[in-house]
Amino acid sequence: MPRVRTDITMSIDGYVAGPNQSEDNPLGEGGMALHEWAFQLKSDASKAAREAMNENVGAVIMGRNMFGGRGSWEEHPWDGWWGEDPPYHVPVFVLTHHEREPLEMQGGTTFHFVTDGPVAALARAREAAGDQDVHVTGGAGAVQQYIRAGLLDELRLHVVPMVLGAGERLLDDLGDPPPAFELVSAVDAPGVTHVTYRIGGAPAS
Amino acid sequence: MPRVRTDITMSIDGYVAGPNQSEDNPLGEGGMALHEWAFQLKSDASKAAREAMNENVGAVIMGRNMFGGRGSWEEHPWDGWWGEDPPYHVPVFVLTHHEREPLEMQGGTTFHFVTDGPVAALARAREAAGDQDVHVTGGAGAVQQYIRAGLLDELRLHVVPMVLGAGERLLDDLGDPPPAFELVSAVDAPGVTHVTYRIGGAPAS
Repeated sequence: MPRVRTDITMSIDGYVAGPNQSEDNPLGEGGMALHEWAFQLKSDASKAAREAMNENVGAVIMGRNMFGGRGSWEEHPWDGWWGEDPPYHVPVFVLTHHEREPLEMQGGTTFHFVTDGPVAALARAREAAGDQDVHVTGGAGAVQQYIRAGLLDELRLHVVPMVLGAGERLLDDLGDPPPAFELVSAVDAPGVTHVTYRIGGAPAS
Repeated sequence: MPRVRTDITMSIDGYVAGPNQSEDNPLGEGGMALHEWAFQLKSDASKAAREAMNENVGAVIMGRNMFGGRGSWEEHPWDGWWGEDPPYHVPVFVLTHHEREPLEMQGGTTFHFVTDGPVAALARAREAAGDQDVHVTGGAGAVQQYIRAGLLDELRLHVVPMVLGAGERLLDDLGDPPPAFELVSAVDAPGVTHVTYRIGGAPAS
């Protein structure tokens, strides 16, 4: 059964981006340092966690903030942060309020712009993914929407021992009551702890 | 060199107590469930983490909320939550605004009420502890005070896969800039991840 899952890197105080996010600094102050583990890959555990992110992923969903740009596409042309060959290599469904034709990039990545909400985006992503998983790749708002809707099956948190103090918090506003989380595994590596939670179903006991 | 350290159990969304704390429910809604791991001790890893809490502890510091009661001791007599033989068995320094004579309990626990602030309380605790560690046992406010002051050396977080959604958050308001945290170890066990961070000194790299 294909799953809907996410990988996201979080500070120990719960932030996935630092304060004062801007077009020049989309991850906010201190936000880039959160992701050093994924570039440096200092250990086999972190290499495995990094590789597992892309394994068996048939489609990706991301929020508009993560895709970048602002307002309407006509007024503010923007094709994403990733250049001509984005690292996704599968269909990517971007949650947005602004309609746009699909944008085909090199290497198998096509961005589809979905204006009728996260449930519709997931239906399209599932269809595109076939028997592979759908990866909700961020940001915090998109992940929260899917958790609140009971649609995210697995959360892989990469917890970095930094305190950002402010910014974009991941595990807020998860529904009332929030879904049950079950610890699947935790692996420590230099500078990062890789923790996997299963969401929904019976509470962990 | 004796250390100043803490053990604290936190939900994955960062809370050490749930919402609507009261005298009848001092841990707030959902807060008791956070601590089930420490009562059930389902694994050797959790047994080891629980035993390590008390190892080499020569004195304890706690905030007034954790000791309990309210206002002045004369108007509202209160000797703590733990009955006649509290589980500390060492001198306990309670941060409070209300002066009170030391309260000697059975089993080696004496509560000392410190009204001249956390730095003074730590000086007294260090002296009482000798070459053993000082354990700041909670709550969140007391731990934050010592982190902000650069006086906490080690944080042992027991992260439980529950989302409380509201309540008392641990890793807020840690100073500007906050101190560096360095990951020492992470161990997963059924229903809880035991993570140790060293605080201060060089940033983890």
